[in-house]
Amino acid sequence: MRVVVPFGGRAPKTRLASFFDADERRDFATAMLRDVLDAVTDAGGDPSVVADTRVDVDAPVTVDDRPLSAVVEDELGSDEPVAVVMADLALATPAALTRLFETDGDVVAAPGLGGGTNALVVRHPDFSVDYHGASILDHRHIARDAGLSFVEVDSMRLAVDVDEPTDLVEVLLHGTSRARTWLTDAGVELECGTGRVEAVRHRR
Amino acid sequence: MRVVVPFGGRAPKTRLASFFDADERRDFATAMLRDVLDAVTDAGGDPSVVADTRVDVDAPVTVDDRPLSAVVEDELGSDEPVAVVMADLALATPAALTRLFETDGDVVAAPGLGGGTNALVVRHPDFSVDYHGASILDHRHIARDAGLSFVEVDSMRLAVDVDEPTDLVEVLLHGTSRARTWLTDAGVELECGTGRVEAVRHRR
Repeated sequence: MRVVVPFGGRAPKTRLASFFDADERRDFATAMLRDVLDAVTDAGGDPSVVADTRVDVDAPVTVDDRPLSAVVEDELGSDEPVAVVMADLALATPAALTRLFETDGDVVAAPGLGGGTNALVVRHPDFSVDYHGASILDHRHIARDAGLSFVEVDSMRLAVDVDEPTDLVEVLLHGTSRARTWLTDAGVELECGTGRVEAVRHRR
Repeated sequence: MRVVVPFGGRAPKTRLASFFDADERRDFATAMLRDVLDAVTDAGGDPSVVADTRVDVDAPVTVDDRPLSAVVEDELGSDEPVAVVMADLALATPAALTRLFETDGDVVAAPGLGGGTNALVVRHPDFSVDYHGASILDHRHIARDAGLSFVEVDSMRLAVDVDEPTDLVEVLLHGTSRARTWLTDAGVELECGTGRVEAVRHRR
């Protein structure tokens, strides 16, 4: 399956500014992108990247700096199925993506925490995207209004997109690849106090 | 399968104090417990509750006010499989729990966000529990040290336990039962601003 991976590489992950400077954030975002591309490939997908700036990865890259919805919209509209997988799904595994790709439905979605749509499979030309706000609600409505089936995949690994410091905890707990290694090399560790586990950075 | 649902009913959900007073929090926690019990039953499980105070639900209740790990430990140690499912999994569906119950492994776990262990199936008497801190890490180690297989179920619906205001967002987005109705009756709604979606309460 054709799999589009949108990547914002110009000023990525600003909400991690308390942990990392701009160069580090770009490095970390690229590590996550590479993990996602590997997982897509291992799940049998054929990935390509649409990025707002050049990025060096092992997949075709198109540079397009329009907003996310416009970029993705251009990839839809054909009768061939297409998947859209966000570049910051650092917990994504081939197994989780295989489950996404193999779930039947005109539109199949993996909801993100907080109302996002972290991954989509679109099998019908009448579907369109709107990534603004609580996009999972919008996508449910867009599919329903077009008379299309909309099926949600229940996956924690696809639900966690890495935006905020609490998301780093999940990468440290459940990550298996570059992003996790990048974090530990940067001195980020789990701290288990009395409440919820936190991520902290020990600067070297 | 025998399914133990531990419930802290004395002073539940204190981290939701900015939204609800103590009576409301107890009501909401009970609504979630009832949802979980229904989902367990619909998944073919045979639920019972171990609570630190009396609670009126449609399942057998044992009152035991010891710490969580001690209470659960007493339920283990037999050759019969037993599941332990937290009472605040407001997104749990029969499908998600069926996947948990039917996954093979000496120990099967559904990780919670932030390092918890939201649900377990234990099929071997040599496993023991430790719910303190990042319990999913502890449970991995306990199983490994006992030579047992430890399999994790990838489910967002089992990963979200409702403790904090951000968790209410998930209930409003994905809940289908009492807990969601309770929230909307209490005037809790989604607010979609420019960043992540938030839950807000409109007092009536």
